[in-house]
Amino acid sequence: MGTTQLESVPEPKYWHLKTVLSEALDSEFTVGEILPNERDLAARFGVARATLRQALEQLELEGRLQRRRGVGTTVAPPRMGVAVGSDQQVWPGTGDDGWQAVDCTLAAPPAVVATALETARDQAVHIVRRSRVSHGQPVAAELLYVPVTSVPDLTAIDTPSEAARARAVLRELQRLELEGQDRAVELGSARADDARELDRLPGAPVLVVTTRFFAGGRTAALSVATYRADTCRLTFGASGGVEIHHGPERQAS
Amino acid sequence: MGTTQLESVPEPKYWHLKTVLSEALDSEFTVGEILPNERDLAARFGVARATLRQALEQLELEGRLQRRRGVGTTVAPPRMGVAVGSDQQVWPGTGDDGWQAVDCTLAAPPAVVATALETARDQAVHIVRRSRVSHGQPVAAELLYVPVTSVPDLTAIDTPSEAARARAVLRELQRLELEGQDRAVELGSARADDARELDRLPGAPVLVVTTRFFAGGRTAALSVATYRADTCRLTFGASGGVEIHHGPERQAS
Repeated sequence: MGTTQLESVPEPKYWHLKTVLSEALDSEFTVGEILPNERDLAARFGVARATLRQALEQLELEGRLQRRRGVGTTVAPPRMGVAVGSDQQVWPGTGDDGWQAVDCTLAAPPAVVATALETARDQAVHIVRRSRVSHGQPVAAELLYVPVTSVPDLTAIDTPSEAARARAVLRELQRLELEGQDRAVELGSARADDARELDRLPGAPVLVVTTRFFAGGRTAALSVATYRADTCRLTFGASGGVEIHHGPERQAS
Repeated sequence: MGTTQLESVPEPKYWHLKTVLSEALDSEFTVGEILPNERDLAARFGVARATLRQALEQLELEGRLQRRRGVGTTVAPPRMGVAVGSDQQVWPGTGDDGWQAVDCTLAAPPAVVATALETARDQAVHIVRRSRVSHGQPVAAELLYVPVTSVPDLTAIDTPSEAARARAVLRELQRLELEGQDRAVELGSARADDARELDRLPGAPVLVVTTRFFAGGRTAALSVATYRADTCRLTFGASGGVEIHHGPERQAS
């Protein structure tokens, strides 16, 4: 990395620095390499520490850098494409998509979930916890809310473990005819328990995918899945069926 | 807002504060209301300014708060659902989806786009700029990359304005038979020009939606659309056809 002094530009200084740093990452660093410390970097580019930090934050948002406790700032590998939606509509737990059932509890859901499920505010629902692994890394944590009325025969099932109970709920759900589903994606911050599962700090940026499953003319289940925003690119589609491949340059513009 | 002192908790302090603040927003504040300044808030909750700032950042990520220059921190309205994908696959520019053509240039695209389009690195493509408005607010800015070979008859068209030229490219594109499309969603930061169009600062978190359109056995066009992450919830689907409605509580878990 050279000792380029930044000239005054109409854009914010950190923005211009980000572009310069980004080019340096492409040309001089390899994936996994640890960046020099902030003081050295700030000196080399002739900027204040605060400006440098802003630029580093930008590059982290864009998935170019990873900050890890005890390690420092490293050059991130390209984001993984993680399939979220397809033309086929299927119940959760069908197909080999990397999801694993963790456990299942019976509890009152948050108000917004109760509203979506059209259950009474204090009515307990099955809450199935699942986690998703892709390429050996945790990528998502999910809470799947299933009203008791969606799986009426479940009470008869005596299961030995929490994970088995979760799988039993999924199995019962699959007996319903799936009439459709819809999905929403938005930015969020990782709750403490999700963060632990995703190996991130609480509050790390995540992509929250909310999926409603329709059966019998109503919402039979609601999934709230939290994906790591730093390492994942969510993919939807694809009639074309081809994977989008981004090279070392991650931003397509 | 009361003068609650935070007790020591196993979670990071800012995280607990975030939860307390979030409840206060629900019960004591209305949408658009300006929050007390940071010093007053920190004093009321008995936390350091740095802790308060972290909690406010979390709430901004979750779309609960908006920070605007010259105004301060205000309580955000619920995020808008903005339809991104549907079961139907259509060319851009068809249908009434709030997109407006802005202009069109002929230039070499970024390397990653050239790779996706399978064009040579220095080969110029049509770059159509569009912007999307929903509920009277700018929600997205798009660059649509169209190889010259996808619209071979375009050169014959003599157009009076940039916007008309953009529309002409879209019209020519629609003459091709669309064989399929795929999509990816990832976190990014707003480039300076997008930020201007979206009424945000450069570097603000955005949701980047990359769509490939397939025709004639290849990628006939590539769209990179940048959505405001603070105000938008991207919706996909829906065979069910029902809008997901989130109430004042935005996080469904």
